[in-house]
Amino acid sequence: MNFIYEIKITYKDSVNDPEGLTITESSQRIGFKEIKKIRSGKLFIINVESPNENEANIKIDEICDKLLHNPIIEKYSFNKI
Amino acid sequence: MNFIYEIKITYKDSVNDPEGLTITESSQRIGFKEIKKIRSGKLFIINVESPNENEANIKIDEICDKLLHNPIIEKYSFNKI
Repeated sequence: MNFIYEIKITYKDSVNDPEGLTITESSQRIGFKEIKKIRSGKLFIINVESPNENEANIKIDEICDKLLHNPIIEKYSFNKI
Repeated sequence: MNFIYEIKITYKDSVNDPEGLTITESSQRIGFKEIKKIRSGKLFIINVESPNENEANIKIDEICDKLLHNPIIEKYSFNKI
């Protein structure tokens, strides 16, 4: 069976996010005074072939851990879509 | 009131995604044969100050449209978290 997952990777709260900071400042400069904070992150949409949802979950967790995120500065979450 | 939104920006389906393709190939090379396709995207977590949710929605839609996404090659979606 084919499962589709959405993976969200964001910086840990204690880690600086220069991209997010720059976009926050840019948005305020062009008039979006209501925007108080922007944090940036990465998104992956993954198609995985698996006999069942449980094994698909395990595979996605493994690939997030081994390939997609940097555990020093990032955290991840995922959900089936 | 303070609202927090999650914004997802992905390439349109017809647009090539070299980052996603590279990660797909890398994942298969290191043994994740079950991974059939990975598409990459961007994620933003935005804090917005607004008198009500309706106006916050309008602001977020506007900033996505004007600053965060490239309408030629990308699409966006958002939800309050």
